[in-house]
Amino acid sequence: MLIAVIGGGRCSAEEASLAEEVGQELARRGVTLICGGLGGVMEAACKGARAEGGITIGILPGDNRRLANPYVQIPIVTGMGYARNVIVAKSAQAVIAIDGEYGTLSEIAYALQNRIPVVGLNTWSLALKGQTDDSIIPAQSASEAVEKAIVAARASTT
Amino acid sequence: MLIAVIGGGRCSAEEASLAEEVGQELARRGVTLICGGLGGVMEAACKGARAEGGITIGILPGDNRRLANPYVQIPIVTGMGYARNVIVAKSAQAVIAIDGEYGTLSEIAYALQNRIPVVGLNTWSLALKGQTDDSIIPAQSASEAVEKAIVAARASTT
Amino acid sequence: MLIAVIGGGRCSAEEASLAEEVGQELARRGVTLICGGLGGVMEAACKGARAEGGITIGILPGDNRRLANPYVQIPIVTGMGYARNVIVAKSAQAVIAIDGEYGTLSEIAYALQNRIPVVGLNTWSLALKGQTDDSIIPAQSASEAVEKAIVAARASTT
Amino acid sequence: MLIAVIGGGRCSAEEASLAEEVGQELARRGVTLICGGLGGVMEAACKGARAEGGITIGILPGDNRRLANPYVQIPIVTGMGYARNVIVAKSAQAVIAIDGEYGTLSEIAYALQNRIPVVGLNTWSLALKGQTDDSIIPAQSASEAVEKAIVAARASTT
Repeated sequence: MLIAVIGGGRCSAEEASLAEEVGQELARRGVTLICGGLGGVMEAACKGARAEGGITIGILPGDNRRLANPYVQIPIVTGMGYARNVIVAKSAQAVIAIDGEYGTLSEIAYALQNRIPVVGLNTWSLALKGQTDDSIIPAQSASEAVEKAIVAARASTT
Repeated sequence: MLIAVIGGGRCSAEEASLAEEVGQELARRGVTLICGGLGGVMEAACKGARAEGGITIGILPGDNRRLANPYVQIPIVTGMGYARNVIVAKSAQAVIAIDGEYGTLSEIAYALQNRIPVVGLNTWSLALKGQTDDSIIPAQSASEAVEKAIVAARASTT
Repeated sequence: MLIAVIGGGRCSAEEASLAEEVGQELARRGVTLICGGLGGVMEAACKGARAEGGITIGILPGDNRRLANPYVQIPIVTGMGYARNVIVAKSAQAVIAIDGEYGTLSEIAYALQNRIPVVGLNTWSLALKGQTDDSIIPAQSASEAVEKAIVAARASTT
Repeated sequence: MLIAVIGGGRCSAEEASLAEEVGQELARRGVTLICGGLGGVMEAACKGARAEGGITIGILPGDNRRLANPYVQIPIVTGMGYARNVIVAKSAQAVIAIDGEYGTLSEIAYALQNRIPVVGLNTWSLALKGQTDDSIIPAQSASEAVEKAIVAARASTT
């Protein structure tokens, strides 16, 4: 199973800690982590996954595999800039969004468009024409996020 | 000046009417319209623009120029699916979002990420970590949306 | 009708002259020119087209519309790097290749893959497993290239 | 080390056998295989790699991970059609081209543009303005191709 962790390329120490824990929890359950391959939330999640022996994939926006964070095992070089966000979203069976910038929002949108479940940890919330869109599954902790993402991934691919 | 009109590939008669009026107002001010080239909001906006002699560009997701709506003058064929959304957003000097599906949300996200102003007509609203993100400039009518988009485009490219 | 002119971002004075003449001939026949929007062959072709009142579209690899050559009327901003080559090829009803670097070769390949006719002026020639591939239609002059491209475009879209 | 195997989505039994042997040789040397994830040369190469316990990555053009061939371990879903070819080329440290269609030619072009070495087994040959371009490193057997690709990859990343 492939699960994406998305979030800002820069983040607070608290968010990094949360992302690292998400990475650990995914790896402990045998889930491969896919992300945008750069710093911040992405790096922290990869670090956590690698500490538990997990596999990490980074879908890089640039042309240089060496710009992947040091915890990416499999760097995929797109050279497509932030158009690569669609690949992060589509390749995952579920997405865990932590905090986030507008790039993260684009990945959430692409995932929801493709009916890929999104679990949110302290991230964006959406409303359309004044009505709340509750498609993002809320979670309060790393382990809850990972649990919910796995359950949702299984349900959506059945 | 290039301004994007984004919105669902299907829409209500009321939204189509709004989009058509936006297209007319853009054309009257000499603005070229760029959109995703398909139906719904995109088609209605192109129809309005053409009625006033405006130029219309459609950035198509598929491989076939003939799938553009009949009001697209310049079909750009990407074959990239919804990854083409990033091109619609980045090519515009401002974006007008009408109603919208998740694809529209991805275009809003890309525009904001690239500091391209977004004017919203009855569309998505955003909050991050519980705090409202008021980056989307609200408008209540087609003419207000077009006016605000042109003013914002001029300010952002100065 | 949309015809692409492809070729190196840098070129000799002789090639620039040829590209400019191609641009002029396209514009005189009412054909819209699409290209990669940068310098060299692309700029010379756009310059020629504009001198004859033609419409010019540039599919830019970067994020900044201001990096288009000054003869591009409609800059399309992809931010996708050289992945944008596929869009130049697919959007055209025929392609004219002048000289060329490896980027040009990728555009020729994409055009042939999509059964879009390619006319070559002093450009790549191909062989597969030792057998010549004569899919690229040869031309010796700008006017011959434009004539052959228009004829081939009409035949392929009938 | 990541090495790409590129070639037609359909191929002869002889070419499939060659591709399978390339996959085996890569896996025996601990090289991860990246390809376009579909049938023909891609499937045969993945089959060979998996038989020797290698890791296989498929960069899919479509939206559905289930369309990967059964020997792809890590399916990357791009939804970008043949624009995904640029990712196959750019992610590899060297490319082995077997036989090939125009899509393969586009991948060769992208690799050479990015100074990624290309080893050819019974594939395209190129000439520019009548002069042979000998950038594609020729090989006569699967093991020779793999040896040369590894040597070239090491040289290019030093």
